[in-house]
Amino acid sequence: MNQSKLHELINEMTIEEKAAQMSQVVSSLINENSGKGKITGPFAGMEVAKEDMSGSGSILGAAGADDLRALQKEYMERSRFSIPLLFMADVIHGYKTVFPVPLALGCTWDPEAVEESAAIAAEEAAAAGLHVTFSPMVDLVRDPRWGRVMESTGEDPYLNGVFARAFVRGYQGDDLEGDSTKLAACVKHFAAYGAPEGGRDYNTVDMSERQLREYYLPAYEAALDEGAELVMTAFNTVAGIPATSNKWLMRDVLRKEMGFDGILISDWGAVQEAIPHGVAADNKEAARKTVEAGVDIEMMTPCYVQHLKTLVQENVVSEALLDEAVLRILKLKQKLGLFDNPYRGADRELQEAVTLSEANRKAARETAAKSCVLLKNNGALPLQKDQRVALIGPFAESRDLMGPWSIFGSEDDVVTVRTGVSEKLSSAPNVAQGCDIEAVTYDQVQEAVEMASDADVIVLALGEHSEMSGEAGSRTDIRLPEAQLQLVAELKKLGKPIVTVLFNGRPLDLHGVIEESDSVLEAWYPGTEGGRAVADLLFGDTNPSGKLTMSFPYNVGQVPVYYNSFNTGRPKDQIAPEDRFASKYLDAPNEPLFPFGYGLSYTSFDYSNLQLSSGVIKENGKIQVSVDVTNTGTAAGEETVQLYVRDLVGEVVRPVKELKGFRKVQLKPGETGQVVFEVDEQVLKYHHSDLTFACDPGEFIVSVGPDSRNTEERRFSYQPAGQRG
Amino acid sequence: MNQSKLHELINEMTIEEKAAQMSQVVSSLINENSGKGKITGPFAGMEVAKEDMSGSGSILGAAGADDLRALQKEYMERSRFSIPLLFMADVIHGYKTVFPVPLALGCTWDPEAVEESAAIAAEEAAAAGLHVTFSPMVDLVRDPRWGRVMESTGEDPYLNGVFARAFVRGYQGDDLEGDSTKLAACVKHFAAYGAPEGGRDYNTVDMSERQLREYYLPAYEAALDEGAELVMTAFNTVAGIPATSNKWLMRDVLRKEMGFDGILISDWGAVQEAIPHGVAADNKEAARKTVEAGVDIEMMTPCYVQHLKTLVQENVVSEALLDEAVLRILKLKQKLGLFDNPYRGADRELQEAVTLSEANRKAARETAAKSCVLLKNNGALPLQKDQRVALIGPFAESRDLMGPWSIFGSEDDVVTVRTGVSEKLSSAPNVAQGCDIEAVTYDQVQEAVEMASDADVIVLALGEHSEMSGEAGSRTDIRLPEAQLQLVAELKKLGKPIVTVLFNGRPLDLHGVIEESDSVLEAWYPGTEGGRAVADLLFGDTNPSGKLTMSFPYNVGQVPVYYNSFNTGRPKDQIAPEDRFASKYLDAPNEPLFPFGYGLSYTSFDYSNLQLSSGVIKENGKIQVSVDVTNTGTAAGEETVQLYVRDLVGEVVRPVKELKGFRKVQLKPGETGQVVFEVDEQVLKYHHSDLTFACDPGEFIVSVGPDSRNTEERRFSYQPAGQRG
Repeated sequence: MNQSKLHELINEMTIEEKAAQMSQVVSSLINENSGKGKITGPFAGMEVAKEDMSGSGSILGAAGADDLRALQKEYMERSRFSIPLLFMADVIHGYKTVFPVPLALGCTWDPEAVEESAAIAAEEAAAAGLHVTFSPMVDLVRDPRWGRVMESTGEDPYLNGVFARAFVRGYQGDDLEGDSTKLAACVKHFAAYGAPEGGRDYNTVDMSERQLREYYLPAYEAALDEGAELVMTAFNTVAGIPATSNKWLMRDVLRKEMGFDGILISDWGAVQEAIPHGVAADNKEAARKTVEAGVDIEMMTPCYVQHLKTLVQENVVSEALLDEAVLRILKLKQKLGLFDNPYRGADRELQEAVTLSEANRKAARETAAKSCVLLKNNGALPLQKDQRVALIGPFAESRDLMGPWSIFGSEDDVVTVRTGVSEKLSSAPNVAQGCDIEAVTYDQVQEAVEMASDADVIVLALGEHSEMSGEAGSRTDIRLPEAQLQLVAELKKLGKPIVTVLFNGRPLDLHGVIEESDSVLEAWYPGTEGGRAVADLLFGDTNPSGKLTMSFPYNVGQVPVYYNSFNTGRPKDQIAPEDRFASKYLDAPNEPLFPFGYGLSYTSFDYSNLQLSSGVIKENGKIQVSVDVTNTGTAAGEETVQLYVRDLVGEVVRPVKELKGFRKVQLKPGETGQVVFEVDEQVLKYHHSDLTFACDPGEFIVSVGPDSRNTEERRFSYQPAGQRG
Repeated sequence: MNQSKLHELINEMTIEEKAAQMSQVVSSLINENSGKGKITGPFAGMEVAKEDMSGSGSILGAAGADDLRALQKEYMERSRFSIPLLFMADVIHGYKTVFPVPLALGCTWDPEAVEESAAIAAEEAAAAGLHVTFSPMVDLVRDPRWGRVMESTGEDPYLNGVFARAFVRGYQGDDLEGDSTKLAACVKHFAAYGAPEGGRDYNTVDMSERQLREYYLPAYEAALDEGAELVMTAFNTVAGIPATSNKWLMRDVLRKEMGFDGILISDWGAVQEAIPHGVAADNKEAARKTVEAGVDIEMMTPCYVQHLKTLVQENVVSEALLDEAVLRILKLKQKLGLFDNPYRGADRELQEAVTLSEANRKAARETAAKSCVLLKNNGALPLQKDQRVALIGPFAESRDLMGPWSIFGSEDDVVTVRTGVSEKLSSAPNVAQGCDIEAVTYDQVQEAVEMASDADVIVLALGEHSEMSGEAGSRTDIRLPEAQLQLVAELKKLGKPIVTVLFNGRPLDLHGVIEESDSVLEAWYPGTEGGRAVADLLFGDTNPSGKLTMSFPYNVGQVPVYYNSFNTGRPKDQIAPEDRFASKYLDAPNEPLFPFGYGLSYTSFDYSNLQLSSGVIKENGKIQVSVDVTNTGTAAGEETVQLYVRDLVGEVVRPVKELKGFRKVQLKPGETGQVVFEVDEQVLKYHHSDLTFACDPGEFIVSVGPDSRNTEERRFSYQPAGQRG
């Protein structure tokens, strides 16, 4: 069906039919026999009437080739124009083969691996009949109290943009139209959902427009530039107006400036949430404001189906706004080929063949290993396969390794740490739970102590259960639960080496475990193959290479702490320590415990011979920055070499460091590799006070190193034509 | 000297002389024999050269009638035009008679008392030769990690505005020109210094312009409307540009919009701090940007004296900018009568007569008693004068009761808690220190336990020493120090009533003391007469009436927490408790431990008969809100009745409550008083997304009660002409 046919179709549709296209519900509301997606919002209270919703043009949350084929068939049969349904769902970090949570994926610093994870998720989900995934989530995050940081790739706008592109490429591929193993990607949450005040989910977001444009918008832009078909609105306010009904944000910024002409869908219930937000008196006003803002699909509330017709009849809302939205929706259905084959991709046999295939599991295992970050190692790692290992802790045998937002994954398919470790050892480990996640008994500790007494090394598997982070998983205390810290303290008394493996969805305050452990591996939620990936690393079959993409704070009182901050007028490191009047805390460092970019290896890397091809960048020019990296240890390993830039004098204040590039280098023991970066005008640009995006002549620092803290630096200047120099 | 004479004078001045007028230093830099003010900034490193600065037109920090007369004399003798010096200093909450810290003054909810405190400070300081005080500080504060919250009156823009006016009236009086017992007031810190990220002093401030205008600017405006002669710049950035060199903020907002034509002075060293901030390459660029922004006086850095001349000669800066600044400076000198009498007010005999006079001490005692907040009372208070009292804790005999920013006060003049309590008791109390502020020994605890064992009641005097808050006093942990919590725990074992009195400059996380105590009195830093004021309250000679003006958080992980927040789209109290997906924390309440407006009395007050004169406000109309308050206890007492308004539907999101009025009512036991408020259009106005300040037709809630949490509410609507009705 070509575009003029779509227009003809729209011309024949009633307003009710248009409003139905613009509404999305869980499948049970259009067909009570179907499965129901995960209910994530205040659903019951919203009174979504089945009769209002049975014509909805898309559904969310259901999956499975047979089920979705049946749903589609039933729907098509009662659709006046045989317009097929769109099937959407939260396929966030894998479908059945669950990959590490996105914050862990970020720590791979490996866009190819992330792209592959998305491609595998798409392959499995498309075979199960899905068309659209509500991914990637590319919200910049700086506050570990917010549970949903696990769904972001971290605190850096540049890196988030790189991963946003990788996710979109992985889901959509090169040929979304022709390749039925691909999904359309929906980038979210537009905009700045990652900055809720106090780290409390759904809370107010407030920042200057310049901050929004400089740090928060780039990753969404990257995803759109890569071709993401859909955008999801955010729950939060932006500049005092909920994003979902924020006309400036959606019409001026997203549509006009960014040129997005795909489907803009609300988050779950977000249209009606204009009422508790206090910018709409009722569903009708919520519908009006949201459609005026340009939201094409309302998810899980009935404001559109209830009120768009009246609003059009009363000449409050132009029917052209509806036509515009419906055209976008039909265009995506057309692009996915659904008018020709409404069952696109849904194939039970293929589904069975690809789901949790050996290849997919292997990829999940390898990616999980890349995503773990070795935070500390006093030599207790790697383990030897003939060591007597005591595996202790609430995650020793837990299947809760998939983490939040893995709604299609099954714990039955999860490989536990016990299994992974046992597969490596010549004799079975001693295993004890030691404590629950948030409680501990005397007997549990006693059993753990007994198991440990008999071992050469204690492997402690600790963390937060997956409900402690994720959506609506905000916490004011980001330490490990007291029960686990007690277990650590008791085991510490044995004087044996302690290797701690952490499973969690946010950066933690590690007091009570970091000093007490000889080695600490941050494993995040590593997914279906998590237990094997962790074992691969513990025993050195894979050398850790992950690096943090979100700072680990010293404590919660220091939050937000992030590497690309400003110098202030009284920088602590430029003022004598005895001088009180510096920008600092009296009782804690300014710096996080572990900075952005940080991560250890079983080998060591030396950096040398940092050189610039020139000390000057001319207009439209560039320079090369090269550095030699040498593997000075005894194991082969991979290093992620990071390049940061600082603008010493800006029209506005500029961060002390900004990531502008990174390169992976794999080196055998003794081997040296040269890494070369290019720095051009483009990376010097920033948003000025008048919001123009440009760079200024002047002095800059380029720094290169293994993380954002330990870098070596050189100076250069930018001298466009007509400038001094 | 009239204005045309001032212009003539300026025309005769050299650029160097103008630049000198625009510079301010401590007195030792213009006369090495003089006393030196408190050095609060990175002074040594700034390399302020004495020879550059000897002509400075104002000095800060020195005081004393004889010293300042001598300084003035020496300066006038070498001044080519006999232009007198201006003497400025930080007289923040009293001069020698130290009143409670401003955060405590806020808790009086008594503008008359605050005005009187400022008038007394002015009386003492003016007699000591001072002309200008760097007060009031009216920065809105929401983050108790920031140590300087003690210098603000709290988290509410309306209340801060009320107190800003009171301070200005108290310092300046009705006749600043004619009354030499008055000081010129300098409102600070323009703008939004109270919102540093992470609560770390001097750190980045970022917020939307709407937020800035709606919540942060009103109190500065109130001070200017009341006639404050000077404004001080803030250390922080505003929208990415340091306030001190922020031309938009100073020229467009402060000068043009707010119509301020008085002296704008930098904070200490803030001009040069443009360099570490990264918006100026060197002193010369800092000077240029700052003078262009309209800062008239540079405090404690030499950018102006070193570079203004060259900048003018190079035609980079117009000399007219200098003339404009110098004119403002000379106009204030003229207004203060200094051209006629350069020794204005400085009078040793008067100084001796008024300083720490009985009347001033009495006022300080009464105001301190009004500023303390009774947080909890299980009946252990008031104490009886024949009880055997054990007075224990590091503040039992401490003279550290004046708090930060009391640089002219002397600990020798401070009345301790021991003295205050002893004056009340028929037999002397048992006294033990129990612990240091941040350390405790076994012997200390043993002594305390012995002293307590013999007593009927334990009065614990705990807190933070005054260096733990104030400028550059940021902390990540806002609990009482562990040593003191240990002392509490040990004494708790005795099973005796515990009355805790807290001395501190910030809202604290009171876990570890609030449950353990039978009664808790927040005494802040109560000033010179603090010990007696506390004793007046403990023994019921004065009935507590203070109410918090800044929320006490449940814990630091909940920060920022403040009463006038937004509802979000998923308000916790509107979503079923079993539904995860609400805006909440998993491990802590959303609400603070003690809310804004909270404070107990030894009597109880019942609210009844809340009535509106009409349910509708018409255009230019108003309604009366009345409520009956009855003293239902056995003691006479004072209640602060608070009125809040909520706009249910705004063009932007609106706070769940906003203070719009308060009334004090004094009631004998059994007595009922009616309190009447007026609500008019003016209080319904807010800044819309286009920054216009207006109100919208629609529904509102007015609520009245003893604090921001416990209120009764009524609805009304605003129906301007032409609206539905």
